[in-house]
Amino acid sequence: MQIGIIGGTGHEGRGIAARFAAAGLSVLIGSREMERAQDTVNRLHGASAALAVEGLTNDEVAARSDVLFLAVPFEGLGELLQGLRGRLRPGTFVVDLVVPVTFEAGVPGVVSVPEGSATEFVRAHLPPEVHVASAFKTIPASALGKLDAPLDCDDFVCGDTPEVRERIIELLSRIPNLRPLDAGGLASARAIEHMTALAIVLNKRYKVRDARFKVVGV
Amino acid sequence: MQIGIIGGTGHEGRGIAARFAAAGLSVLIGSREMERAQDTVNRLHGASAALAVEGLTNDEVAARSDVLFLAVPFEGLGELLQGLRGRLRPGTFVVDLVVPVTFEAGVPGVVSVPEGSATEFVRAHLPPEVHVASAFKTIPASALGKLDAPLDCDDFVCGDTPEVRERIIELLSRIPNLRPLDAGGLASARAIEHMTALAIVLNKRYKVRDARFKVVGV
Repeated sequence: MQIGIIGGTGHEGRGIAARFAAAGLSVLIGSREMERAQDTVNRLHGASAALAVEGLTNDEVAARSDVLFLAVPFEGLGELLQGLRGRLRPGTFVVDLVVPVTFEAGVPGVVSVPEGSATEFVRAHLPPEVHVASAFKTIPASALGKLDAPLDCDDFVCGDTPEVRERIIELLSRIPNLRPLDAGGLASARAIEHMTALAIVLNKRYKVRDARFKVVGV
Repeated sequence: MQIGIIGGTGHEGRGIAARFAAAGLSVLIGSREMERAQDTVNRLHGASAALAVEGLTNDEVAARSDVLFLAVPFEGLGELLQGLRGRLRPGTFVVDLVVPVTFEAGVPGVVSVPEGSATEFVRAHLPPEVHVASAFKTIPASALGKLDAPLDCDDFVCGDTPEVRERIIELLSRIPNLRPLDAGGLASARAIEHMTALAIVLNKRYKVRDARFKVVGV
């Protein structure tokens, strides 16, 4: 199974790439510029030369991936999806990691999206032959990047159908100390994206960087 | 300090009354009908005759409480607040527990409130001399009611000011095995109310009743 990451050179994309590669999976790291993708690959290989990572342009990553993670800002997402539409093979799993958080007078909140959430926006902009899910939205990029520190939290996976969610949950289960939970259909992304904003409030209030969530009773 | 609960005869109100009374606090249980409030008091005294609980009408509870919890449905909340406006003493702490969850084709979601959340709706309908906060929104009523089972989770407290939150957090700290967290200003209620809907999705998916949250990294 080929994993790809659009925006794989950013803080979050790099962290996910490292986690999947450390779990023995093959990861394509995408960037708008080939050179930056290659820089990230070199950096990851600096930590461990054995990691199966390869740097490519976002377009090439999209065309070659079975599971494609979108680790990009909300701004420009519509344009990015328009560019991807023709390149994705039918049956590709697109996993949205976009966190549409905005700050008003220093207070984090969620961008108002007519579709309801960034994930539903992604669904609306991709053809039905492509599966859509979301994951990693409540896991801080800085926690993902600290490979030696266990994540020790849950992840909320929502997706088109129970089968799509099952497939993504199976994949995320390869990352140690992360429990992926089936959070239902794409509308659940509304709650999940709000939780990211809440985690930022908690980070600020408690002067920490990696506030994240666990579910009790499940 | 006098605690009061509007809607203290419901599943959630009763659970909170029991938890506070078990912690040695004095609790007024309110209902629209005095008789129902008295029934709940008898029921709580059945578990332990030593609990300091008293049954009254909602109006009387509002007039006599220092910290007043609103454990009512979202429907009818505007009317209730209109009735309370003249009865609350200045400086009363009103703590909103309202969970504005709705179901569309079986899928739980959050009622769209022009003010942003039920808590901000409460703020908009009460005079500025009254303090507003929210708490207990993500704690399942059934978990609150099982006095022998530790809650073992976090609670997200948002409120007008850091001082208001501090006061409510101090009060909630009296309940064992519950960690109240300062979740910032009232706008955080948007995230917190969405989390309740997500917990219901998880309950359904995992066939449990008491899914609730803990924050890691704080």
